[in-house]
Amino acid sequence: MRRLRAGIVGGGRGAFIGSVHRIAAELDGQALVVAGAMSADPGIARASAADWLLERAYTSYEEMAAAEAAAAEGIDFVIIATPNDLHFPVARAFLAADIHVICDKPLALTVAEGEELVRLVESGSTLFALTHVYTAYPAVREARELVRSGRLGEIRLCLIEYTQDWLMEPLENRGNKQAAWRTDPAKAGLGGCIGDIGTHAANLLEYVTDRPIEAMCADLSSFVAGRRLDDDAHMLLRLQGGAKGTLVCSQVACGEENRLALRIYGSQAGLEWHQEEPNTLLLKPAGRPWERLRTGHGYLAPPARSAARLPPGHPEGYLEAFANLYRAFMQDVRRLMDGQPPLRDYPGVHAGLRGLRFVAQAVASSRAGSVWQAL
Amino acid sequence: MRRLRAGIVGGGRGAFIGSVHRIAAELDGQALVVAGAMSADPGIARASAADWLLERAYTSYEEMAAAEAAAAEGIDFVIIATPNDLHFPVARAFLAADIHVICDKPLALTVAEGEELVRLVESGSTLFALTHVYTAYPAVREARELVRSGRLGEIRLCLIEYTQDWLMEPLENRGNKQAAWRTDPAKAGLGGCIGDIGTHAANLLEYVTDRPIEAMCADLSSFVAGRRLDDDAHMLLRLQGGAKGTLVCSQVACGEENRLALRIYGSQAGLEWHQEEPNTLLLKPAGRPWERLRTGHGYLAPPARSAARLPPGHPEGYLEAFANLYRAFMQDVRRLMDGQPPLRDYPGVHAGLRGLRFVAQAVASSRAGSVWQAL
Amino acid sequence: MRRLRAGIVGGGRGAFIGSVHRIAAELDGQALVVAGAMSADPGIARASAADWLLERAYTSYEEMAAAEAAAAEGIDFVIIATPNDLHFPVARAFLAADIHVICDKPLALTVAEGEELVRLVESGSTLFALTHVYTAYPAVREARELVRSGRLGEIRLCLIEYTQDWLMEPLENRGNKQAAWRTDPAKAGLGGCIGDIGTHAANLLEYVTDRPIEAMCADLSSFVAGRRLDDDAHMLLRLQGGAKGTLVCSQVACGEENRLALRIYGSQAGLEWHQEEPNTLLLKPAGRPWERLRTGHGYLAPPARSAARLPPGHPEGYLEAFANLYRAFMQDVRRLMDGQPPLRDYPGVHAGLRGLRFVAQAVASSRAGSVWQAL
Amino acid sequence: MRRLRAGIVGGGRGAFIGSVHRIAAELDGQALVVAGAMSADPGIARASAADWLLERAYTSYEEMAAAEAAAAEGIDFVIIATPNDLHFPVARAFLAADIHVICDKPLALTVAEGEELVRLVESGSTLFALTHVYTAYPAVREARELVRSGRLGEIRLCLIEYTQDWLMEPLENRGNKQAAWRTDPAKAGLGGCIGDIGTHAANLLEYVTDRPIEAMCADLSSFVAGRRLDDDAHMLLRLQGGAKGTLVCSQVACGEENRLALRIYGSQAGLEWHQEEPNTLLLKPAGRPWERLRTGHGYLAPPARSAARLPPGHPEGYLEAFANLYRAFMQDVRRLMDGQPPLRDYPGVHAGLRGLRFVAQAVASSRAGSVWQAL
Repeated sequence: MRRLRAGIVGGGRGAFIGSVHRIAAELDGQALVVAGAMSADPGIARASAADWLLERAYTSYEEMAAAEAAAAEGIDFVIIATPNDLHFPVARAFLAADIHVICDKPLALTVAEGEELVRLVESGSTLFALTHVYTAYPAVREARELVRSGRLGEIRLCLIEYTQDWLMEPLENRGNKQAAWRTDPAKAGLGGCIGDIGTHAANLLEYVTDRPIEAMCADLSSFVAGRRLDDDAHMLLRLQGGAKGTLVCSQVACGEENRLALRIYGSQAGLEWHQEEPNTLLLKPAGRPWERLRTGHGYLAPPARSAARLPPGHPEGYLEAFANLYRAFMQDVRRLMDGQPPLRDYPGVHAGLRGLRFVAQAVASSRAGSVWQAL
Repeated sequence: MRRLRAGIVGGGRGAFIGSVHRIAAELDGQALVVAGAMSADPGIARASAADWLLERAYTSYEEMAAAEAAAAEGIDFVIIATPNDLHFPVARAFLAADIHVICDKPLALTVAEGEELVRLVESGSTLFALTHVYTAYPAVREARELVRSGRLGEIRLCLIEYTQDWLMEPLENRGNKQAAWRTDPAKAGLGGCIGDIGTHAANLLEYVTDRPIEAMCADLSSFVAGRRLDDDAHMLLRLQGGAKGTLVCSQVACGEENRLALRIYGSQAGLEWHQEEPNTLLLKPAGRPWERLRTGHGYLAPPARSAARLPPGHPEGYLEAFANLYRAFMQDVRRLMDGQPPLRDYPGVHAGLRGLRFVAQAVASSRAGSVWQAL
Repeated sequence: MRRLRAGIVGGGRGAFIGSVHRIAAELDGQALVVAGAMSADPGIARASAADWLLERAYTSYEEMAAAEAAAAEGIDFVIIATPNDLHFPVARAFLAADIHVICDKPLALTVAEGEELVRLVESGSTLFALTHVYTAYPAVREARELVRSGRLGEIRLCLIEYTQDWLMEPLENRGNKQAAWRTDPAKAGLGGCIGDIGTHAANLLEYVTDRPIEAMCADLSSFVAGRRLDDDAHMLLRLQGGAKGTLVCSQVACGEENRLALRIYGSQAGLEWHQEEPNTLLLKPAGRPWERLRTGHGYLAPPARSAARLPPGHPEGYLEAFANLYRAFMQDVRRLMDGQPPLRDYPGVHAGLRGLRFVAQAVASSRAGSVWQAL
Repeated sequence: MRRLRAGIVGGGRGAFIGSVHRIAAELDGQALVVAGAMSADPGIARASAADWLLERAYTSYEEMAAAEAAAAEGIDFVIIATPNDLHFPVARAFLAADIHVICDKPLALTVAEGEELVRLVESGSTLFALTHVYTAYPAVREARELVRSGRLGEIRLCLIEYTQDWLMEPLENRGNKQAAWRTDPAKAGLGGCIGDIGTHAANLLEYVTDRPIEAMCADLSSFVAGRRLDDDAHMLLRLQGGAKGTLVCSQVACGEENRLALRIYGSQAGLEWHQEEPNTLLLKPAGRPWERLRTGHGYLAPPARSAARLPPGHPEGYLEAFANLYRAFMQDVRRLMDGQPPLRDYPGVHAGLRGLRFVAQAVASSRAGSVWQAL
């Protein structure tokens, strides 16, 4: 047994998500990030690689894919942490080199690209994971188990929200790179806020309820003058099996940091979870007091227990959830090395393609004047 | 100066709202409820009047209106606390007798009845108040002042919710009178949940933002089998001035008691209020820590300060808010006695008519498949 | 049946506790305040009586006791809402006139006065109630039932706190009457903060645990320069049966409003209650999720259920708790009228005497350098 | 630049704190744990080393110290994660080998041992850090800056609490190793709960207030029958400069997980922090609304900003705080390599010795019947 070797594309200086990936990949002591093409700018690429003490620094991902595939001790998998428009070409390059891929969401720029990636992944044995991190919190795992076990009864209402305020000013015109590409259709795709965070919300909702969204009726807005993509979206939802709901996402909700909140109400119990206090899950049984489930306890279901590393009361957060995704993905990398079939207990290309369709249909619904669209 | 004399129609044994009205009317020591037609059932009417130590008990509101109008020391105003279908005829009878009216919402069963009441009230000098109690909390008053003062900037998003769970089972088939009339179109009107609590939510939103809802796109449901009116509603909103929002109301949200919650996000600050912890108002200024405004403090605006009776940290609740509505209404009763013009600082027939139209348009939108309807 | 007639001594303009008593006495429609000696200042007495629409205004409590005792329709009971130094003489006067008494805490200025009141009350049949209001919240009643039922097991730790900040500046030197008498040993007694709010905390603790404090080790301070009584106290506690604990009270805790908070930990469960959010009680069973009990629910014990007037989610507060004390007291007034023995389900002279001893022993412990003192 | 090489003593299978150290040391990509003597049991030592993919496994810490000191690529520092009784001999061995040490608290078993370690560290240039992790949360750093800046004014009250429930049953008799050594005076030292968590509380209080505890008056208990060390402690505190306070710690507080909570009240503002929701700090300015400071924001002081790795709303927790201690310690390791003087921005032997004295004086105070003891 050895630590796995990872490489990264993107995530250079200034991109907070880069170190999130590194920390998450290495957290359990099962991998080291050793190579990277961290920026298209050679200077930034070199400096970023030095910051990270990388063994091998590249300035082109194509070169990196080729060199690592050829190396005796090349990387076991690649992390894609670039802006959205590069997800597709970078993923394609590493899949072609038979190097496993773990990629930021969204999967790609367009539904067509997403479909092509599905084909590529399905036609080979190379692994592909998409970092829908919010599904990896222990309390979210518990929520999913509670729904699956029937504890909530028939699901009736689902209220999901993801609000932030970081785009409430036109930062894209003030030199903020993160804002610039996220509000540029050529780099971000069809959706602004709906793509950046709305897809997380939709993915989380479907994950916990185990029910697909069947239809949506959306109203998208751009509150900041001159912004080319939506920065706010409200939608009505219908889920398979008869549940109804509301999805709200916004990046102009003044004062909100990263308020992803989920509520599900069934015929026998309700539940509520807030990402900003992620170690608590509220269970609301009919006619009884609310129960406050907390991560780390023995009374949780096994998937929630195994997703926590610490005893109760020792808060775990975003990085640990991210590391849970990596743990499942890297377990599959090792299983393939050992000749075992992968377990695929993480979001993959299909979840990614579904996210792209979600964005496309939300935009279509809104443009048509809030008309129901099937998903 | 003497205490005002009040009468009540409805509110007999078993109707929790009856004593709410009595307590609220009497709380500030400015009135006494002395007469009532508390039930159409003579036995219940008598027993209820005895419970309340009333001086004069009636079994018919027509008789009561006539007798009190004729009496030397007749009542100064009447409280209407009946099921919805009686609001119109009872109000009409007392208006005809020139007795001031304070009435439960909704104003009436139909828009047509509501329009007739508007005509009746406008053609005379008799006062009419509608008990949209939630606008009378001190923190709500503060919220309204914050919006009016421009502290929030341009209003962008409004999220309002009113969820309960008391109708999650078919209580209307199990002998529950409150449930029976609220789910019966003949007694409740066009709307179930949307009329019972959705109107409170819409009224509160318009009150705080000072902006009318211009259009709505609704999806109403009846989750309990056999129920004839909606018990759940989700809707997209557009407000005058460009704000967008979402309104959710439900009476089948398992585990929720009376979760009325309002959030408003502007270009400079956001705010958040929860009826179940009514003495706290969260203010979220851009780029600064949230502030937790609490009722009773000197830093609040005058309308919020005068709506609280106790120092900070001495919780006030629903009854005190209700008493605030009564205080404003009774102040007008006294002003008319003194020959002064009324101030009308409480919801009246126009708010009531708007509520009836809100229900009608929500139902119309939903029936048409969630099509935008103007309000 | 008629409404009871109440009189009040003290509580004139500027004294917030006066209207608290009036509202609480009248809230359930069972009494009216009709007479008062609301101030020693004749002008204030008259103006206050006019504000309250009183039928009979006095400027002397002795005169009031005599006149009301002699009147055909004299008051049924008197409310004492004066500064502490008058509690004893006023109570003595009304007891002598055979008029039932409900009195603000503390019972008197000194232990000797308290003992005298115990003798007076025990030697007659006149009722005496002390308004330790915090024991009358529904959630506190539930807490007491949970302890009594054995749900918590053996009680181990008790943490009680009562912090405020209203005396953090020397208001007594700035014309604030409430501050002036509370910091004046001649008017307030031996204790400042410890008497004003520490006694509430101790009373609540003993009420909920059903166990007397056996000993205390205290450290009292006066943080504001020149203040003659304590404005802050910390103490170690030992309760009968082996439980230990800590009591903190302060009136200089910057930012705190009226933070009375109780926690009790037993061998099988813990519980937690906060007066500022009084409708919630947290129950913490060993090895299980916390439960959030809420007032108004059918799952509560009968004493908690009957202490709430509204359905769950309709917040009740300080005034309603105060009214619960009045309800129990007035029920006894009626029982005596009907020749039935009183139930005495409210704090009386013995609780009052215990409070005076608590203050005396806390002061003694602190003066001796934090030495354990028996209570 | 290369990753630093770390070794570990203790922390083998079953000891949760072992992986906490590894994760914290490696989190920022600046170190790798490569060697260990993880258990005195050779089988466990080997298995634990294999779990961690260590390059070099030892069964004796003496052997490890010698071998690593001699190796060309030996470890740069050692982590001590053993039961308390080994802290002293292990630290002495590695200090003797000139290997930097980062050690779990408490520093040693006795004050005498602690004094010896102070001498050893002061007489050489080898670094020594003690993992008082709770001081390393971003919000705690902000709290300290607020006090230092004078924002709170003169400090008056300090309330600190650290409650858990994991020892509420006699786990030491049921095969729980963690419980067994913590309740055994030979392995844990003079204090049970007071040593295990009380020292964290005292350290945190002194850290944030920048004021030493001058005296304490304590009452220690062992609630679980047969337990040889305290499992609960309550104490009165006096701090330099005149502040007073209360410290409560317990490991039998049913339902509490890891409730470390700090409140400080000054003449101009108060503050409050809860370890279980570590990313929030409440600031309570006199006469103004509470402010809710959140980690990750630009409005925080530099020491708080640099202690967070993620944007606001992305929760960070215990592991990240632990990694902050490691970051500061490892920065000093690198500085020494570069010939720069160390910055010592982390707890060291002096803090450790102070903790040992705190335990000794708390025990002495309690044994003498809660007599004030200087610290």
